[in-house]
Amino acid sequence: MKILVTGFDPFGGEAINPSMEAVLALPSKIGDATLIKVILPTKFREAGEILMREIEAHQPDAVVSIGQAGGRSAITPERVAVNLRDASIPDNGGVQPTDETIFPEAPTAYFATLPIKKIVATLKEAGIPATISNTAGTFVCNEVMYTVLHEAAQKRPAMTAGFIHIPFTEEQAAKKPEGTPFLTKEVILQGIITALKVVSMEQ
Amino acid sequence: MKILVTGFDPFGGEAINPSMEAVLALPSKIGDATLIKVILPTKFREAGEILMREIEAHQPDAVVSIGQAGGRSAITPERVAVNLRDASIPDNGGVQPTDETIFPEAPTAYFATLPIKKIVATLKEAGIPATISNTAGTFVCNEVMYTVLHEAAQKRPAMTAGFIHIPFTEEQAAKKPEGTPFLTKEVILQGIITALKVVSMEQ
Amino acid sequence: MKILVTGFDPFGGEAINPSMEAVLALPSKIGDATLIKVILPTKFREAGEILMREIEAHQPDAVVSIGQAGGRSAITPERVAVNLRDASIPDNGGVQPTDETIFPEAPTAYFATLPIKKIVATLKEAGIPATISNTAGTFVCNEVMYTVLHEAAQKRPAMTAGFIHIPFTEEQAAKKPEGTPFLTKEVILQGIITALKVVSMEQ
Amino acid sequence: MKILVTGFDPFGGEAINPSMEAVLALPSKIGDATLIKVILPTKFREAGEILMREIEAHQPDAVVSIGQAGGRSAITPERVAVNLRDASIPDNGGVQPTDETIFPEAPTAYFATLPIKKIVATLKEAGIPATISNTAGTFVCNEVMYTVLHEAAQKRPAMTAGFIHIPFTEEQAAKKPEGTPFLTKEVILQGIITALKVVSMEQ
Repeated sequence: MKILVTGFDPFGGEAINPSMEAVLALPSKIGDATLIKVILPTKFREAGEILMREIEAHQPDAVVSIGQAGGRSAITPERVAVNLRDASIPDNGGVQPTDETIFPEAPTAYFATLPIKKIVATLKEAGIPATISNTAGTFVCNEVMYTVLHEAAQKRPAMTAGFIHIPFTEEQAAKKPEGTPFLTKEVILQGIITALKVVSMEQ
Repeated sequence: MKILVTGFDPFGGEAINPSMEAVLALPSKIGDATLIKVILPTKFREAGEILMREIEAHQPDAVVSIGQAGGRSAITPERVAVNLRDASIPDNGGVQPTDETIFPEAPTAYFATLPIKKIVATLKEAGIPATISNTAGTFVCNEVMYTVLHEAAQKRPAMTAGFIHIPFTEEQAAKKPEGTPFLTKEVILQGIITALKVVSMEQ
Repeated sequence: MKILVTGFDPFGGEAINPSMEAVLALPSKIGDATLIKVILPTKFREAGEILMREIEAHQPDAVVSIGQAGGRSAITPERVAVNLRDASIPDNGGVQPTDETIFPEAPTAYFATLPIKKIVATLKEAGIPATISNTAGTFVCNEVMYTVLHEAAQKRPAMTAGFIHIPFTEEQAAKKPEGTPFLTKEVILQGIITALKVVSMEQ
Repeated sequence: MKILVTGFDPFGGEAINPSMEAVLALPSKIGDATLIKVILPTKFREAGEILMREIEAHQPDAVVSIGQAGGRSAITPERVAVNLRDASIPDNGGVQPTDETIFPEAPTAYFATLPIKKIVATLKEAGIPATISNTAGTFVCNEVMYTVLHEAAQKRPAMTAGFIHIPFTEEQAAKKPEGTPFLTKEVILQGIITALKVVSMEQ
């Protein structure tokens, strides 16, 4: 099987994006699954369009997008993506939409089709903090998740998809207020590998 | 106009529920709007059923439900309700559903129809911490919000509806870990009154 | 009476420092107290040295230092200052000390001599979130607080002193992870004025 | 060498105290160190008195106290203990002191003498979230830490001592607001063992 894994380039004033670093550090195979790695720009519309082209090119069985959600203390598979763009900061192209629909006439929301409960359970068994999140926000992360799930619902019923947010790394947290949660880069990478393993076994 | 305002009875081991206290402390009129106050049990199904009966009885122009979301630092109008029950603790009837759909065949989610951006802006002008939330969770709060919005979408297009979560009060936070955010009871009450005033002017 | 009030210039990658903005926006008198305003550089040693010169020049009855502690949800008078420099980021002069004593042979810590409990109570009565903090960290904020309290303990027993941390403003929080607590600039300013009023009445 | 390890009984409405559970689950030896385990009551004065008797009886080389600090996301060795009791809830004996000195004429604070930086570094190498905390609060945890460090400073210069706070377990966090940080019981136990190993190698 094939899993398409995406990360994002840095945004919001951060020098690095741990999602990009982690995705690039992944092996090329996990169990029987071949990984296809794509780094998406943190830009509305463009991120989704690039991802749709990669899906068309590679015909993956599953799409797992990884993004940064600083302030969280655990690896958090997302439960729901909403049909909305509402940004509190500009994206990397300087665009800052307010209360825009992503796709007119499309559903208000989609639930992830990845096995998010099993991913969380497996991560915790491995000693890695994990919990389900009920919001992927209304920035580019949510748009990418919504776009893939909409594509799957419309045209690719066999393709599972979803989004996993990761916390700040230790290096990032050191520049943040005291007590800011973080996981080390090694634990984040191990967490993503563990999650992908669960995805690879579901198919 | 008529605004139906709901609060919840205490749950999760808390002795009080500031949503109930605040709703009961509201005046009977705000501007030109008459308030109808209802305290809902923190129980799946029953809370929604009671609310539907009250809506039928009172035919309100707007429904504003208030609930407690400890750990938040601001008054948070909710943006979205999802078609899901997934509880990490039992409700007040001992029921703890896992990954259940609220209404089969109904949409995955609804957006609030209250003027949530205007509510937040007005609260902040009044010096009251406020911000939009993108998740009402998957417990009874979310179910009540989803149920009302589904009712409105199906049968009452003129009725606006939504949910506002409030933080711990000072008394509750004193028993929680150091640094737990709170607002005083007076500020919470003032915040709800301010929000209802915005709702009353929208109609 | 005279109150010397200090703020800091921006640091840690932030474009503004709300402590500086708030201090500069203060009136020149509060009740019977005359305010002397000083903006300190966010630099180890230099901040304390400048403050000592200002104290010598103005002979204030009280010193109230204001600093930013992003991530907090309330205005937080500090209870204790420790004899330690331990920085996770460089100060504005590029200096990043690890486990250094501020003054050799001096006590491990001092308690604030400002009426911190009364400040918190008065802020809450005014509807402003407030709580006592037990740590001013180990960066420049703590050093300034420790330096003044050490000066008072050694040479100026009649001078009260302490430190008040303030949360992110709304503008700063908008660029931070969803749910980051904040207070509006207006509320922060009102909070500092309220705290200074308490200080002015204590003398 | 001998390490005396302490945990606390449950308090603050919690059914369990993970510090007690973890301490009781520890092995009897770690490396060359023999562990002496003591469960302390969450009571002012009594906790410290019992601990002093155990120290007298066992003459340990190091004392490591473990306590619960819900809301934290990492294992947090404490840096400083202050000479103060100030409780926002009653202890398990119903006592709720306000602004009391623990030992009159004693120093305002003590720094931990455990190798806290090395403990944090070793935990992170093992993939366990860890960071230094600058406040052990002003409840019984702080009093126990202060009492042992005062004893060591006065009479037992060779005995190192300190306090390690642990987060909520998964079971506890499930009953708390969404997003409440936690570590699994297994990771907490592994973290304490790792910390004790560092302590055992320092001597």
